[in-house]
Amino acid sequence: MIPKAPLYLALLHYPVYNAHGQMVCTSITPFDLHDIARTVKTYGLSGYFVVCPVESQRLLAQKILDHWLTGVGGELNQTRKDAFASLRLVATLEEAEACIRSESGSAPHLIATSAKPGRNRISFAVGRDRLAEGPHPHLLLFGTGWGMAQELLDRCHGILEPIVGGGDGSYNHLPVRAAVAIILDRLLSAPSPVDLSI
Amino acid sequence: MIPKAPLYLALLHYPVYNAHGQMVCTSITPFDLHDIARTVKTYGLSGYFVVCPVESQRLLAQKILDHWLTGVGGELNQTRKDAFASLRLVATLEEAEACIRSESGSAPHLIATSAKPGRNRISFAVGRDRLAEGPHPHLLLFGTGWGMAQELLDRCHGILEPIVGGGDGSYNHLPVRAAVAIILDRLLSAPSPVDLSI
Repeated sequence: MIPKAPLYLALLHYPVYNAHGQMVCTSITPFDLHDIARTVKTYGLSGYFVVCPVESQRLLAQKILDHWLTGVGGELNQTRKDAFASLRLVATLEEAEACIRSESGSAPHLIATSAKPGRNRISFAVGRDRLAEGPHPHLLLFGTGWGMAQELLDRCHGILEPIVGGGDGSYNHLPVRAAVAIILDRLLSAPSPVDLSI
Repeated sequence: MIPKAPLYLALLHYPVYNAHGQMVCTSITPFDLHDIARTVKTYGLSGYFVVCPVESQRLLAQKILDHWLTGVGGELNQTRKDAFASLRLVATLEEAEACIRSESGSAPHLIATSAKPGRNRISFAVGRDRLAEGPHPHLLLFGTGWGMAQELLDRCHGILEPIVGGGDGSYNHLPVRAAVAIILDRLLSAPSPVDLSI
């Protein structure tokens, strides 16, 4: 399924909760840069923002980016270079929104994701419909730590229902890298092709 | 969807190809231990085998496991301990098959995954049907490096069709951690619940 208007993804290191429900800024995990950039590229999104207000963290991430975008990494592995081309490091969510407004001409609608049930959740089917209808660009938000701040969820245009696995549903601790993959697949995968079995 | 018989997953470090089509043994990536164990636990599988014939690699992975299963890691993070409980380090695929035979009373049918199209691919719908029907346990195989050896694909009971993302399909380089998440979701996710939108 191809969205009507550009679709972007943001991984938020702030404002998020820690295990004790306190608002914190989490550290950047290098694997999130690699894995989510590759998944974003596979599903054809227009960009991937890593949102972290701590400058030293962004500088560290920039070093990794440089290795793949202009350094020897990209010479050895072109596909990784292609994936990293969509990644932008920003200090705030507002900065990501401003980038999208500037690129696409209108402000994005924010769609949050959450591992928890709660009010205002929308199904993945509704999420697909919204992307198919446009006309606004959309920005999908993923939190780190123990989830996004409630104030941020409250200003989103929708919050996707949590992923429930195939077990008894009691274990609910997917890596954010896996949640991104599953959610992009549920929102964007093409309908199943003709059955290929023999 | 709950499989009729136990379902297991194996991540293979051998026999796989490198970028030049040569048969190699790849190194264990610690994030594969964490991420895939968490996804396997979320989707309720009966076990996760990491298959690597190099003993020093398995010893390194065992140190990580020990930290979470019996060390301070598990005291600090019970959910990670729960995830790692399903992980077994084995030298060969045959060893994983023997474990499953011993636990479930019959040999598993092997279902391979591949990023490449080719002969004998089955759709995800057929894969779901097979898991729902049983009666054999199933072992889902994921390769590392540039994919599983053809001889191994040839002895599988089925090879799942490749994942095609939502873009133009030209970028086909998902991390194995993301491929596991998407494939388990396609095979095992519950049907969409009643629409929750308001």
